[in-house]
This record gives sequence, C-alpha cells and structure tokens, in this order.
Amino acid sequence: PLVVAQRGLATAKPPSSLFAPLDTFPDRHIGPDNAEAAYMLSKLGYDSMDAFVDQAVPPKVRVASNAITDEEIKPLSEDELLHRAKDLGRANKPFKSYIGMGYHNAVVPPVILRNVMENPAWYTQYTPYQAEIAQGRLESLVNFQTMIMSLTAMDIANSSLLDEATAAAEGMVMAFASTAQKKKTFFVDDGVLPQTLAVLRTRAKGFGIRLVIGDASSALSDEALRSDLCGVLLQYPDVNGQISDFAELAKSVHSAGALVVVATDLLALTMLKPPGEWGADIVLGNSARFGVPAGYGGPHGAFFAVTEKLKRKMPGRLIGRSRDVTGKPAYRLALQTREQHIRREKATSNICTSQALLANMAAMYAVYHGPNGLKRIATKVHGLTQLLKTIVEGYDFKVTNGQFFDTLTLDVTGAVPSADALHASAVASGVNLRIVDDKHVGVTLDESVGPVDFLRLANVFSSAVKAPAVTLDNAPVSHLLPGVSEGLTRTSDFLHHPVFNRHHSETEMLRYIHHLQSKDLSLVHSMTPLGSCTMKLNSTSSMIPLTWPEFGSVHPFAPADQVKGYAEIIAELESDLNKITGFYACSLQPNSGAAGEYAGLSVIRAYHESRGEQHRDVCLIPLSAHGTNPASAVMAGLKVVPVKSLQDGSLDLADLKEKAEKHKDRLASFMITYPSTFGVFEDGISDACKIIHDNGGQVYMDGANLNAQISLTNPAICGADVCHMNLHKTFAIPHGGGGPGMGPICVAEHLAPFLPTHPVVATGGEKGIDAVAAAPWGSASILLISWAYIKMLGGQGLADSSKIALLSANYMAHRLSGHYSLRYNNANGRVAHELLIDFAEFDKSAGLKVTDFAKRLQDYGFHPPTVSWPISTCMLIEPTESESLEEVDRFCDAMIKIREEADEIIAGKQPRDNNVLKNAPHPMSVIALSEEEWKRPYSRQKAAYPAPWLHEKKFWPTVSRVDDAYGDLNLICDCPSVEETAHDYA
Amino acid sequence: PLVVAQRGLATAKPPSSLFAPLDTFPDRHIGPDNAEAAYMLSKLGYDSMDAFVDQAVPPKVRVASNAITDEEIKPLSEDELLHRAKDLGRANKPFKSYIGMGYHNAVVPPVILRNVMENPAWYTQYTPYQAEIAQGRLESLVNFQTMIMSLTAMDIANSSLLDEATAAAEGMVMAFASTAQKKKTFFVDDGVLPQTLAVLRTRAKGFGIRLVIGDASSALSDEALRSDLCGVLLQYPDVNGQISDFAELAKSVHSAGALVVVATDLLALTMLKPPGEWGADIVLGNSARFGVPAGYGGPHGAFFAVTEKLKRKMPGRLIGRSRDVTGKPAYRLALQTREQHIRREKATSNICTSQALLANMAAMYAVYHGPNGLKRIATKVHGLTQLLKTIVEGYDFKVTNGQFFDTLTLDVTGAVPSADALHASAVASGVNLRIVDDKHVGVTLDESVGPVDFLRLANVFSSAVKAPAVTLDNAPVSHLLPGVSEGLTRTSDFLHHPVFNRHHSETEMLRYIHHLQSKDLSLVHSMTPLGSCTMKLNSTSSMIPLTWPEFGSVHPFAPADQVKGYAEIIAELESDLNKITGFYACSLQPNSGAAGEYAGLSVIRAYHESRGEQHRDVCLIPLSAHGTNPASAVMAGLKVVPVKSLQDGSLDLADLKEKAEKHKDRLASFMITYPSTFGVFEDGISDACKIIHDNGGQVYMDGANLNAQISLTNPAICGADVCHMNLHKTFAIPHGGGGPGMGPICVAEHLAPFLPTHPVVATGGEKGIDAVAAAPWGSASILLISWAYIKMLGGQGLADSSKIALLSANYMAHRLSGHYSLRYNNANGRVAHELLIDFAEFDKSAGLKVTDFAKRLQDYGFHPPTVSWPISTCMLIEPTESESLEEVDRFCDAMIKIREEADEIIAGKQPRDNNVLKNAPHPMSVIALSEEEWKRPYSRQKAAYPAPWLHEKKFWPTVSRVDDAYGDLNLICDCPSVEETAHDYA
Ligand SMILES: Cc1ncc(COP(=O)(O)O)c(C=O)c1O
Ligand SMILES: Cc1ncc(COP(=O)(O)O)c(C=O)c1O
Ligand SMILES: O=C([O-])O
Repeated sequence: PLVVAQRGLATAKPPSSLFAPLDTFPDRHIGPDNAEAAYMLSKLGYDSMDAFVDQAVPPKVRVASNAITDEEIKPLSEDELLHRAKDLGRANKPFKSYIGMGYHNAVVPPVILRNVMENPAWYTQYTPYQAEIAQGRLESLVNFQTMIMSLTAMDIANSSLLDEATAAAEGMVMAFASTAQKKKTFFVDDGVLPQTLAVLRTRAKGFGIRLVIGDASSALSDEALRSDLCGVLLQYPDVNGQISDFAELAKSVHSAGALVVVATDLLALTMLKPPGEWGADIVLGNSARFGVPAGYGGPHGAFFAVTEKLKRKMPGRLIGRSRDVTGKPAYRLALQTREQHIRREKATSNICTSQALLANMAAMYAVYHGPNGLKRIATKVHGLTQLLKTIVEGYDFKVTNGQFFDTLTLDVTGAVPSADALHASAVASGVNLRIVDDKHVGVTLDESVGPVDFLRLANVFSSAVKAPAVTLDNAPVSHLLPGVSEGLTRTSDFLHHPVFNRHHSETEMLRYIHHLQSKDLSLVHSMTPLGSCTMKLNSTSSMIPLTWPEFGSVHPFAPADQVKGYAEIIAELESDLNKITGFYACSLQPNSGAAGEYAGLSVIRAYHESRGEQHRDVCLIPLSAHGTNPASAVMAGLKVVPVKSLQDGSLDLADLKEKAEKHKDRLASFMITYPSTFGVFEDGISDACKIIHDNGGQVYMDGANLNAQISLTNPAICGADVCHMNLHKTFAIPHGGGGPGMGPICVAEHLAPFLPTHPVVATGGEKGIDAVAAAPWGSASILLISWAYIKMLGGQGLADSSKIALLSANYMAHRLSGHYSLRYNNANGRVAHELLIDFAEFDKSAGLKVTDFAKRLQDYGFHPPTVSWPISTCMLIEPTESESLEEVDRFCDAMIKIREEADEIIAGKQPRDNNVLKNAPHPMSVIALSEEEWKRPYSRQKAAYPAPWLHEKKFWPTVSRVDDAYGDLNLICDCPSVEETAHDYA
Repeated sequence: PLVVAQRGLATAKPPSSLFAPLDTFPDRHIGPDNAEAAYMLSKLGYDSMDAFVDQAVPPKVRVASNAITDEEIKPLSEDELLHRAKDLGRANKPFKSYIGMGYHNAVVPPVILRNVMENPAWYTQYTPYQAEIAQGRLESLVNFQTMIMSLTAMDIANSSLLDEATAAAEGMVMAFASTAQKKKTFFVDDGVLPQTLAVLRTRAKGFGIRLVIGDASSALSDEALRSDLCGVLLQYPDVNGQISDFAELAKSVHSAGALVVVATDLLALTMLKPPGEWGADIVLGNSARFGVPAGYGGPHGAFFAVTEKLKRKMPGRLIGRSRDVTGKPAYRLALQTREQHIRREKATSNICTSQALLANMAAMYAVYHGPNGLKRIATKVHGLTQLLKTIVEGYDFKVTNGQFFDTLTLDVTGAVPSADALHASAVASGVNLRIVDDKHVGVTLDESVGPVDFLRLANVFSSAVKAPAVTLDNAPVSHLLPGVSEGLTRTSDFLHHPVFNRHHSETEMLRYIHHLQSKDLSLVHSMTPLGSCTMKLNSTSSMIPLTWPEFGSVHPFAPADQVKGYAEIIAELESDLNKITGFYACSLQPNSGAAGEYAGLSVIRAYHESRGEQHRDVCLIPLSAHGTNPASAVMAGLKVVPVKSLQDGSLDLADLKEKAEKHKDRLASFMITYPSTFGVFEDGISDACKIIHDNGGQVYMDGANLNAQISLTNPAICGADVCHMNLHKTFAIPHGGGGPGMGPICVAEHLAPFLPTHPVVATGGEKGIDAVAAAPWGSASILLISWAYIKMLGGQGLADSSKIALLSANYMAHRLSGHYSLRYNNANGRVAHELLIDFAEFDKSAGLKVTDFAKRLQDYGFHPPTVSWPISTCMLIEPTESESLEEVDRFCDAMIKIREEADEIIAGKQPRDNNVLKNAPHPMSVIALSEEEWKRPYSRQKAAYPAPWLHEKKFWPTVSRVDDAYGDLNLICDCPSVEETAHDYA
C-alpha cells in the first residue's frame, strides 16, 4: 500500500475557470484520487484507466468512450444542487390536503426527524443480516412488530412491507396459497382504496386469481362465489371513512373456508375494536401517519400481521428474539425470510428490500408517544372530525358514512350545486378535499390540523354556502357526538410493554435512539462491502432536500398544478435514467428492485398479449440468479426454466439456446444480471440476447449491478428490452437498514406503451398495465436523492464512478490473490465491480466455513461482505467507488490477517472447535470474562485487537455469534414484557 | 425507587381543549411526570410541591406564587414555535453582504453541517474536563490549535476565544502584563476593525492602559510613546483590505521592548507571509470563515496564538497531547487553564466558556479541504477580487488599497457623485457594501460568491455608471494582476499533518467525525450532572431554526430594515429575561457568563462615575465565588476584597458588614451567586444587599444558578442591581463541548443608561459603556435557542422547570444520605438545585480522593459531577429538571455502589493503591489485557460491569486515567506529524 503521507493529499484539482464552483461533488464522492487510481492501475499492470477498462468490459458491448458526457448531464456543484432543489421545492404549492385515501399529513417529532431520519448512522446501514453488529435496528424493528401486533391484536407481524397496496396483494396471495391455490376467487369490498384495487388487479392476473369487487356485506351470501372463495379484503375504516362491524361477516367468510384480510389504520385502532378481536386472519396497512412524511407517496412502512397459524407463511422479514452462543438475549432475522432464501420458483412473494427506516421511524413515534400519547392524538383527530361534522351538517351537507373516525364523505347536493363548486371553494383557500364524484366530496383529518387549519377548512364549507365564518369562539365544540358506536369501540389495552412507556421525555428518547444506534455498524464506521448491494455513501447534499416540507408534505394525489416541482424532478430523472440505460421510457413506480422485476415482466407479458401471444409464459433464468428473479417470474404468471452456467461461471449459451428453442413457442422472457452475479462481465451477453429474440422472447436485465456499467456499456447495447435499477444501489439512495429502496424500470420503445398506470393519477403507457405500487411514482420523495446524485456527478462523474468501482474491485482481487481463491474472472483475468472468493477449501483443512471468516471480520471492524450467495461457500465483495484506497487496503489487510489466523488452525496451532474464527465475533462482554470463563487458547488481545488500527478505532459487536437454530425453534417476535424487563432491573 | 413498570407511563395529560396543541414542550423537556414528582415529594415527606418549595426557598425573597404565568409568557407548541421562527426568518431580508469587517459568508460543508453542527452528540457535551471520556473533541481541538499554529506560523495556539475583538483585548493585556504592567501605552493601528477598537477601549479602561490610535508606520517613531510602549496591534490585511509589510515595524516595536500583536485572517494566510514569519508575538482573529455561518455576529471561534516564550501566559483553554497512566497517548486540557483554576484576583483574563463547537467546525473544515483545498478557495476568492478590481477601475472607481487579498476600498468620486449613490444601486440589487464615508465604499469577497453573485455585484458598479452590464462572456478574466507583492507572498508549507490530508472524501470525513464522536460521553448517553453548569438537554425544536439560512447568513452590520426578524427575537428575549430577573433592561452583547460579569461590573463603574464617584473601586467577593468573579472584577479595575463564609456555608454577614463599612467610601460592588455556589438558597441575601446599598455599593448577582430561581424568586427581589444569565445553562443553549455560551446582563432602571454600546450598530444605553464584544448582540444566532426555549416552556413551564430542578436535587440528597456527607443545606435541611458532597473523610480512611470517585463514575457510564469546586474535597452535583427519575435513580445507585466499593477498601479488602477506584476508569484496552498484565485484585467484570444496567448499555472511556503531571511537563499542543502517524501504521 501507499505510505500514509501520500494518501489523499491531492484531491483538489485546479478549477477550470475563475467561475467554476469548488464544491464539486465527484471529488467528494469518489474515494481514491487521481494519484491513488494511478497507483492501483500500476499494481494491476496498466498505465491508463482506458487500458484497464478495455480488459474488464467486453468490447462488443462497449459504448463509445465517454458515452455520457458533462454536456449531456451537466454537473451541478453541491451548492447549485441545493439551490435548484429549493427552486423546485417552491414550485410545489403548499396546499393542505384532506384527501385521505391512505395518506395523511404526519407530524414527525423533531427528535426523531433529526436523530433518525437525518442521521447517517440510521440511514446508511444495510439489512441486518449480521445480527451481532445490528442489535440496535433489530430491536427497533421488534418494537415495530410489537406495535403492530398490539394495535391490530394479531399474533405476529413482520418488520414492514413496501406499501399498503402491495401488502394487500401479499394478503390476497396468502389467502390463495392457503387453499393450495385451489380456490380462485378473492373478494374485495368496494370500500377498499382504489390504488389497492389496482395493484390487486395486476397481481391477481399473474396468479390467475379471480377478483370480485362488491359490497361484502351483501355479496358474500352468493353460494357459487362462496364455494370458490379463498379470501375477502375489507377496509376498516373504509375509503369513505365508514366503519362497519365485520364480525358476522368474518364468521361467514371463515365458514366458507376463506381468510379475512383487513386493511386498516393504526391511529384509528387506538379507538376501534382491533381486527384481531373480530376475526381477521391477516391485517395490513400503512404506518406512515406515525411520524413519516407523506412525501408525495412515500417511502412509507406498510405493516402486515397474521394469526399464529399463518406465521410461517408470512411474506417479508421477521425479526425474532433469540440468544447468542453464550445464552445472552439477541435479536436476529428469523425464519429464513432473508431474501437470499426467497423460495425461488416456489415463491409466492418476491419481497426483498422493504421499508426498515420508515418502520423504525413509526416505531420510534410510538415509543415517544406511548399508548396514552397515541390515544390523546386519536381523540383530538376524532374530536375535530366530530366538530367538522356538526358544522357542515349545519349547512346541509349530509354525512354519508354513519360511523367514522377521521373521515367524512359528504353528499353536497343539499348545500351547493355540485361537488365542483365546493372544490373550487377549497382550492381558493389552499385546501385539497377528496374528489369522489359530482355529488360527493371527502375530507380526512389528521394530527397536523391545528386551529388555523381547522378554521380554514371549516370555512371552505361556510363560504361555499355563504354562511358567516366559523371562528374559535363560535365553533360548536360543546355537544359533539362520538362517531363510533360502543360495539366498535376498543376496550383492550395496548402497548403496555416498558419500551413504549419509558422514553417520553426528549432526553430519554434521544438516549434511546443513540443507544440503539451505538450497537450498529454502518457506513459511518467503515466499509460495508456487500456484493450485489453497492453500499456507497449517500451524500449529505442529496439527503438535505428530502426533509424539507416542500417535498415532505405533499399528498400523492394532489392536483398536478400543485406538484410542478416534483414533476420536473421526475421528468429529469426519467430522462437521465433513459440516457444511462440506453432505453426509451421509464416508470418510477416500482418501489424496490424486486417490484421492478415484477413490473418489467408484467410489461413483457402485456406486450406479448398485445401481439396475441398471451400464451408466452416461459421465463429462462440462470441458476445463479438472485432469488427475487424466479419469484418475480412466478408472480407474473411465468414458468421458470433454469439455465446452467459453465465451469468458468459464464452463462452456458448452448444450454440457453437449447432451452430457448425448446420453449420457442411459449418463450416469454429471459432474465439476466449483468455483470453476472458472479461479478464478471460476460462476453456472451449479446449472443444470449439474440438467442432469446430469435425465439420470440424478451430480455429482462436485472440492473442490480448497473454501477459497473455506466457510460461503459448499457442494457440497451447489450440487447436487453427492459431493466430495473436499484436506486438504493447504483444511485445512492441510503439502504436505511433494510429499505427504503426504489426499483424503477426503463424499457425499449416497443414496451413503452405498457408501462404501469395508476387509477387516481394519470401516468404510464397508453396500454399500460395496472399499478404495481400504491403511489403513482412509488416512494416519490426519495427520487430526489437519486436525482441529486446524478445531477451532482454529471456525465463524467458518473463514468468515473463506474470506472473506479471496477478498479477497486480488481485491485482488491489483486491484493487478495495468493491468500484466497478468486472463483471467477474473465479471460483477461479481470473481475467487474465485485469479486467472488471461495472458502470451500478451508472446510476440509480446518473445519472453517465462510461464515467463520465473515464473523471474524466483525472483530476487525468491518461489515462482512455478502456471504453464501450466489454460491454457498463464497463471499461476494463489492468495494464501490466511494471507498478510499486506505479503507480498501485496510480491508484487504484484515482479510490477509484472517487467512494467517486460518493457517494456524490448518497447522494445528489452534484447535478446530475453539479458535478466533469459530468463536468470532468477540463482544466486550466476552473479553471481560473472568480467566476461568475465558477458556480459549488465545489471548484477549488477539481476540479483540488483531490489527494495529483497532487500538485507535474499534467497533464492538454487542453480542456473541447468534444461535440461529435456537431462534427458529423458539420464535418470539415482540418486545420484552414488563416482567422480563423488571427482571433486568432487579 | 419506583418499579420500572410505573415509570413514565403518564406524561400525556388531557389537552385543555380540542384546539390545544399536543406537542407541548414542557411535557418533553421535564424528565419526571406528575406521578414521579409526587413520588419524589413523598420520599422527602411533602404532600405538595408548594410545601416543598416553601422549605427550600427563603420566604423573604419569594415572588408571589406563579409570578410568571402562561399569560405573561404564552407557551407555544413545538410546531407553533417552528412556524413563528419561519415567519421571523422571512422577516430578515436575504441580501448578500460584501461588508467584510471581519465577517464573511461562510460555506459550511454539508457533511459538517449535519454531522457536527446539527448533531447533539457534538453540541451537547460539556467542556472536556474529564479527558478519558472526551478524547474525540480534545483531538478535534488539537486539530484547531494545529491549524492556527500552522497557518499563522506561531509556536502555540489555544483552543478558541470568544471573538476577534475580545481576543485582541486579551492580546493587549498580555502585552501590558509582559512589562509587569509598567509600560502603559498600547498602540493601535488605524487599520484595525472599529469593533475591535471599541472593545479595546473598554478593556483598557479597567486596566489603566493608555490607548493610542494612529498610523503605525509613522507614529511609532515618537520616542515618548516608545518609552511607555507595551505593545502594538496591527491588522493584516486591515479593515480597508490593505496588506502592509510590517516586518521593519515589528523590529522597531521589539527594539522598544514591546510586543507585536497581529489580528489576521486565516484564509488570507494561505497566500500571505504569515505573521509568525515577520515578527509577531501574538496573532489572533476570527476563524468563522472556515465553515461557520455569519449568524448576525456569531457564535464564532476566535483564535489566539503566541510564541514559545509567552505560552504559559496565554489566556483560554489549551489542549495538550499527553499520555495516560498506562503510557497510551491521550489528550487533555493542559496547563491548568481550566477555568476552575482561573487565577482569581491575580488574573488578567476571565475567559471560561469559549467557542469549542465553532472551533471544532473550523478545524473540521480544514480537515475536509486540506491545504490544497484551502489554497484553491483562497485563489478563487482572490481571483474574483482581482477581476472586480479590473472591472471597477474600468469605470473610474479608484482602488485605494495597494495590496489586497479579498477586500477593495474604492474612492468613488471619479465615477459617481457620492458613496450614497453607489449604496443605493447596491441595495436595489439586494447587495450590501461596506459603508466607509461619503467618498468611499468597501467590498469584501468570499468563498460563497458564485458567478451569479459576482455578476450582480459587478453590475452594481456598471449600473451606477450606466455602463453596459458585465456578463460571464465579457468579463475581463484574462489579464488579472496579483494583488499581493512577492515579498508578502507565503512561501512556507502548511497543514502537512496527516489529519489534514486523509479525510477529503465525504465518506472519510463522515467517518472521522463519527470516530471522534464515538469517544465522547455527552447528553445523548447519560446524565451529566455538573454542578453550576445546568447541563439539560437542548431540544431539537430550539436547534432547528439555528441552521436555517434565514438566520445563518446575516451579516452583523446589515442595515436595520434587513434584520427585522432578528430584531423581534432580540426584543422578545430581552423582555422575557427582564420579566424573569425582575429587572428593567437587558444587554445581549456579552458572549459568555464571564463576559457578562465583566460587562455588569463595567456598567456599575460607569454608574458610579456618572455620579462623580469614579473612585469607588472595591469589590467584595465571597471566597466561595467562581474564579471568573474576581478575575472579572480585576479586569474592570476593581480591587477584590474577599468575604468569609460561616461554618454552615452561608455568607458571613458580619464579615460582609465589617468590610463594607471599612471600604464604605470606595465600595463599588459586591458579587454574589444565588443560590450560593454551595448549592443553598441563603436566607441572608436581602440583608447582604442592603448592607452593600447602605454603604454606597451596587450588587452584582452571578446568575449561573438562575435555573433554581425562575418564578420562585429573582435577582431584583433579592435586592441585586445587575445580573448575568448563562443562557447556556438556564436557557438551554448547548454547551457545545466547551462553548458557545451567552452571558447577557439584566439591570435595574438606574443602570440601564450605561449598558454597552457598539461602534457600528446603534444599541445600548444613552450613556453606555463601549462595547464588550465584537458584535452588537454577541453571538446573536444562538439567542434563537433561548428565545425558543422560553417561548415553548411558557410561564408555567419555566416555573415547573425550576421546581423540578430543586426537587430532583433534594431527592438525590435524600437518596445519598447515609452514604455520603452532604456538606451544606438550609435550616430546613433542603438544598437548592444542586448538592455539595464532601469526600474528605475517605482520604484518611482509604487513601481515596474525590477524583477517584469521579473517575470511577465513568466506569458506571456517567459524566462525573463538578469536582473539587467550590471546595477541593467535594463534588457539586446538579441533576436538572430534564433528567428522568429513572436516570436520577440510576446515578444514585451508581454512587451508592461506589460507596460500597470504597467500604471494601476501608475494610482492607482491596489494597489502597490498587483498587477499582484508584485504577478507574477502565477502558476497553485495559479490560483486554492479558492475565499477566492485568495484575489487579479484582475481576474484569467488577471493573467494567459493576452495575447490572451496564450489560445493556455501557459507555467505554477510551484511555486510562490521564497523567496530568506528565502532560504539563511535556507540553505538546499540535497534531501528530507524518512520522508519528506513519509509526502507528507500521
Ligand atoms: C441481483 C439482484 N437482483 C434483485 C435484487 C432485489 O432488489 P430489491 O432488494 O431492491 O428488491 C437484488 C437485491 O439485493 C439483487 O442483488
Ligand atoms: C458560578 C459561575 N459563575 C460564572 C461562570 C462563568 O460563566 P461562563 O463559563 O459562561 O463564562 C460559571 C461557569 O461555569 C459559573 O459556574
Ligand atoms: O465551568 C465552570 O468553571 O464551572
């Protein structure tokens, strides 16, 4: 390695002109400077970057050099970006929305805003696969699960899904699966949100489910329907604010052998009898009104809870309370819901990245408010709704929903000529009401409604009927009737666990947040070289606009003329993504990579269908593909046919050809990841695409590895027809400890007409498929981050990022060679942006598995790379362009030292069952054991400080290796109770 | 203690009306809820809060119950506060200032903004007295010192002072002291900033220094002047932007036996020959342009550097590199510059709280940019200044300063009728220029000037002369002449230390910030019960507006009509502080408590003088007073006469009377802290005040303990004439790891005419003293925090805060009784808001000092209380109202456990020289020692986990007990060099 004095001395390049800004983002984003890049190239034997890239990326698919230039995407400095964002924010009009339909104006407690949402130690982490260095967010996610279980009165809940609509779709599919896919009718009550219905339509299609929409209270007596019924979806309260007593209905559904799926609202549940108490089997919804901004549609944490008997079928990630090998309590991802274990072609769900950060925010909100605080909020929201009802009824608006919590649907005909007249009055006051039809409007209140807001809202009505204005003094506050009947009123307790009852002062809350944070390793500590995940830093500049109210407090269904800022960002991002992929059109709707896969495949199916080829239903997928690929294919109604790899890891083109030809008549598509999940740019990519096209199929490129491609190659040049991008990988949206992500798709011109639409807001292709997510542009607010990232890097910076990402991986491969076996590379000996190292040899020689190496890396202060995927004995290592040479070297030094430690075991100097690797990681509690308990044939120094830098900077795992088997046997997914906690304090 | 399940369950009280906001701040600010308060009262034997308060606070000085009500100070909810702040921010006009005069538009790198300035883990810490849990900010402050030493080319620098003007005053007094106060003339060059001159005038008066102002280059030949000369202050570059070669002058000053004091600019020094290379003895200035917002005057970190031979006389805090008892490198506060060792009546400086947070920001800015980055910024600023010069000379404006860096002073007469005409043109463009006189204007450029700004600025001139507009295309960029001659150009290297050359990517910078943060215990971890410091949490809501540009980017000398938002905040805060203190008028100028003392005493002196009693120069001060009291008195030209305490800790009124009468004719004032520094409300306070008044003196109340008083008593009722408030204590400005603070004073009506003025902006009394700080309202931007705190608490919340602060301290005294000796309480057995515990007994019985107990508290995860002050064998413990009962109990549990540990030593079970207290704290590196090295008669478990809660939440000191003696002998105050660092990585 370079000597330290030379490192990083020269990032400052002379500016191009006196007027050129100095806060140029590429200099800050890319880790190595020019001198360091030259050094790395020299170690690999190259005298120029071009020479190197020419050997890593196949010439056949190279784009003309510098394909994307600064002219095409002009780089903005950090300050310019922030100014541009401010201007665009101002272009969104600050109307107050009472639209409801699943979206509210949330109030983010400032202590959570600043210390969770705006805190890189919370937002830069990866999914908590490495439990020992993730106990903080695991605990927080268990708080989320507990909150959901307690409020819904269900037995178990997962740790978030993408949005309410896709959660409903998961519920539908679970119901379908619970009949072994025999009963095909799923009934949807007509009180369900329109976006949920749209997503159900899309999803039902793939699975061949028959959707029936109607009034659940009457339609379910139909015998024909009952005999084929797998489930019923109810909304509680429904889109019109109506709250129905579904208890009898639930019994009737059960007696038909079907499941009761309920979409609900967490705040309402503090007052309403929870679905778990009247027969729900599956309960889901959006948790965002618990302190997560509307953000023009997201990201929000959806929740999903089920009864005990369904728990092992539940989609998504589930966190359990287990223990470590010393018996100390420890949290972990439970039940193999880890997406690396997604059940591939047997899957019914492809959920992978979900919404951890937002689930954490919602959980923290409940921790901060506690049960009493939540009740207080609900009481106020409900009280103001009661008051509004009294007021508007005085003007002869008629409330059509009998029971209500926070939403009124009004028949306006007794008061004004038409709904339009009322909307006009609203718009004049800066207020949005829900558009229903020409006779009705809707209004939904929330926690954010203060006296000024309320009067403005009430006076939309008074002014429409030319009545005197409502004031705080004349508002009829004294005789309000409750909107919920006694039978529907909640009587049971909730959130009695200590964690929801101890942290109510800001001081305590802040400390709780920081305490959990201190347990987790994130990008603020060190490299997280997770292969296939592209864990690069999310810059502060790109994060800042995200929490401006100009972007946060926008309802996804706000009228177009109020969201011009968003529209511009969306248009620019679409256009930039099209340039980068070489494609023609883009849909920003899918809110994860897996959702992108599903959307892309559904688009392909629609395309075939449009050509009368609806029978095309075979999807070829390499065996090495990410689990989401086959899962998405199945969900899109495709039959998965696996394709083999050759000895050298490359796609077996002969096998591909054979299968493509074999399924020629039914071939729908081929899914391929590029560079491959083995970390190599395959030469045969264009040939593969040609084979597929020749046989009538379409090529889906999984864009998880797009960071390796930009400006060097692109999916279109490779021959693909559609690809998704994981914006949380290539385009630097923070992973948030397991989400949010975004998975937009770009498509070739022939597929553009089929891009997903939305039932409320016009978007997508003219022959577009139904929606794939609840909001028209998915988790719209975080699009800002990728938009900012692209705009600040500019064309050249994007290209440089990809080049340095390739260079770092190859430099790492070079440094590790001789110490570890690189599994695959290309004919020139080059890997792409990540490298696959095989640990199989150590099993025999020393009884060591890849996991032992991974856990030992924790002792060195690193987040282990991706382990056991895509090959069970391997690690997949991806440094990214953000990491400095110093950090890359430090990681390599650690790997080499661990190899030396393994050698001692091989040589018999440490026993096979009691050594630094097998016992790793070593938390503080173990280092502090007494001499009698220590009982290890190595010193504490060797355990904890195996490298010199650790004396200066050491990150401590907080538990020993987690006992996975114990956890799966003893599945506990809620917070410790009062008794358990009291015990801790005894 | 209460059982855990009951804790904190019920903070949510029913709202007063449907319209009442729910985000009520008192509920979040005050730790214990009503049930907990009742519990604490019951433990003390009271059935009501009133009964308790009646016994703690003397009836004589009680204000009518609920003196300050919600009607007087109406509470705003957190959201209402943020909206109000937004509105006020909008009332400040966003003009761009080119005024200069020591203030610039700084560019805060986003990664520093978010992760330092907006991060409670950086802003809530206390001064790093406890080195073992403060290595992070100590390292950062050493970076600051190194940066100053390197850029100024001086031998040693301190870790910040309050502002440039007071730093200059410190320089003047050092020069004066260096002649043993024999030579009384201090010469100030007329290029010095006007605010600096004003502060020098004030300060010179107290010390009896003769100030002479003139042109240093000519006036210093005067022999009469030379013979009495102690020092000369030069500004480099000067207020007009002129850069002079002072090398010859410096020789001449030295030959007169006087010191050369230089005020300078850090960015300019990257291009200019540094003062250390041409003879400066003392170099000072403002570091704010290194990434700290102008903030309408501050807070900013001033710097102060001296030659080797002056180092032990330097005012302020100095951080040294030393080692711990195991020999590991460790940073610490060096040379007893700790304010608890302020040299009382022998002092020449009273500096205590300084500007650590801002110094840290400036240091981080240098770490992020590195030497090359700084040069690049300086080159651009200078280049644009050269360009502006070329342009305006083209219009016949005449640049009057020959050599320049970033500032031009222009004779406008050749181009426009008057300066006014040009200012009018500027204002029309939203631009502020420096007002000089009717023929001249000034313009100063900085890093923030982008192309759009530059053109707007240039076109102020073109439009004033009706010339065609300057554009990017026609700007004469090609033939610019450098503004600095070769002889004045810097040739020496700077900032070659590794720390300034390694963290240039955002990823590396973020990690460095978090790495340092991880070493420091702050309010995000646990209680910091520092007596006399009132370490309560600074709420997020009060911190948010601080970093809005509406408040950050305002120049302190901006015209009044552009700062209406600030004006309103200032007026409201003054009015609220007057209500709280019972006084008539307020000055927000002093930027620390000590500066408040000095200002208040100077006001008293002016008052006496106005009555022809300038001879009154005796100041009575209790022996128990904080060191700043006598130091401030000396600085104000007063002779300190100490007053004794009685056995019970109370003021010896007889002694007071005797001394007051003895000095009757010369009695100027009496300084008293209330409640006393011993933590008790003294009964005799009104009598004491009467004695002083009867003898012609004025009473100065040190308001450090005001948190105990609010709404219960107040300084006016007690009989005082003036008091300062430490806004960073009572009014929740974060301590920032040792600053910023604010020390405004409130005064009775007769003193109001004498409140400090300002030379540039009208403020203060009609017969006001000269300025005491550089900016008219001191560190104006942080006034927002106290303003928000008061507005959100409202009258009732303020009163409740004081009551709970008293209750918590008394509850603590109750819990510790029987375990430790409470030194003082009142006749009812009550302490005030803090308690003084005496450890003297343990010295004899176990060889243990108070420090051993303090260091052991670190092992329990607590920041030790104030140690050895005001009594060397004592701890002064202040819980504050922010701490929950759970935390208070946890602290008491820790104290009681340590007492048990001490008992083992007393009982001979652990040796006196090798036990858990003497060896405390125990960092991880020690716990990980091998069995041979461990050699302690107790287990690692006992060392590290002496209480059960530590298994769940443990904060680790990063070094063992620091070796103070070694550090003072081996004073090293800069960063490790390349060689030292390379060694670490070997
Ligand atoms: C190759 C590949 N494809 C698809 C995905 C799924 O993307 P997401 O997690 O955003 O759903 C991943 C996620 O890691 C991946 O690595
Ligand atoms: C009693 C007392 N007076 C004065 C001061 C000085 O205040 P400052 O540190 O703000 O200068 C302090 C500081 O802690 C103090 O405790
Ligand atoms: O800051 C103090 O000196 O107490």
